[in-house]
Amino acid sequence: MVLECSCVKLMLFISFSAIALASSSPCSITELPLVRNISEIPQDNYGRPGLSHITVAGSILHGLKEVEVWLQTFSPGTRTPIHRHSCEEVFIVLKGSGTLYLASNSHGKCPGQPQEHFVFPNSTFHIPLNDAHQLWNTNEHEDLQVLVIISRPPVKVFIYDDWSMPHIAARLKFPYYWDEHCYQDTPKDEL
Amino acid sequence: MVLECSCVKLMLFISFSAIALASSSPCSITELPLVRNISEIPQDNYGRPGLSHITVAGSILHGLKEVEVWLQTFSPGTRTPIHRHSCEEVFIVLKGSGTLYLASNSHGKCPGQPQEHFVFPNSTFHIPLNDAHQLWNTNEHEDLQVLVIISRPPVKVFIYDDWSMPHIAARLKFPYYWDEHCYQDTPKDEL
Repeated sequence: MVLECSCVKLMLFISFSAIALASSSPCSITELPLVRNISEIPQDNYGRPGLSHITVAGSILHGLKEVEVWLQTFSPGTRTPIHRHSCEEVFIVLKGSGTLYLASNSHGKCPGQPQEHFVFPNSTFHIPLNDAHQLWNTNEHEDLQVLVIISRPPVKVFIYDDWSMPHIAARLKFPYYWDEHCYQDTPKDEL
Repeated sequence: MVLECSCVKLMLFISFSAIALASSSPCSITELPLVRNISEIPQDNYGRPGLSHITVAGSILHGLKEVEVWLQTFSPGTRTPIHRHSCEEVFIVLKGSGTLYLASNSHGKCPGQPQEHFVFPNSTFHIPLNDAHQLWNTNEHEDLQVLVIISRPPVKVFIYDDWSMPHIAARLKFPYYWDEHCYQDTPKDEL
């Protein structure tokens, strides 16, 4: 069976004027329209050169409680930190290729030597809960663009310096970089 | 600031041979590779002409417990049923356009007259919990393709005949059509 080719052009022409038009208050949930143009959602690198992060649908920005969706682009050679989190995470590779490093040793003392998995356009994978991992754009010639879906937002990330760092020494980063600006430490109703 | 254009070509050339290569047992989680080619994941219309549904990452098929991701294509004129569910749902429009009908009256007797929202390529929106809704490809000339993210899989759907049907008369469909084949009524650990 042959289905039609489908193509999404995520035209990310983001200008400051577009950002200004999208919302005068980037942390206000009530001012946002129900249907939003992803091209007009602000992006930032949050201090990591070569990264573009967009929270497409989020907990703090859009009021979601159970899922969150990011659009991330990594320039050649850039990568996430080695990290773990106790939420589910699904990736969809929209463009480019790279390497997923995954250490399935959450019960040991440290992550240890990770397994390497090649990821490619139109591939999908998910990260088991609490497994340390790192996504790296190992393609010298092309950006790596992924959609990322996580559960239990906002994300609570434990960061490792290297694969031999003990799990208990990993540093908690919360709120995470893209949640910091709008995060307010107010009581939340928990499930 | 101008980012590069990014494009994903979801080449859905699915043949029976590709399906056979992907897994000899479509309900076995253990036989699946960590990184999967979306083009090789089986699609079906589940009895709805004009629909193509692919479970990209799922509860029953892939062992996820908190999120699930679908890739769905609606041919011109086709639509979902009017329905509600008590999980979060995020849409990303990859291709085409259409109309979201949304009745934000979950506390009334019936959904009532829905609001109409135009959805377009590269747009995103989410459905409030328990709000009755319907997505319709109202574009006569093009397929509507969406990525759908839900929480609390597998999905439990209540279906309405029309917008004036009382909430209590909506019919529960569980397991949902794409979960039926692999669903086993085994005890699950709950959060």
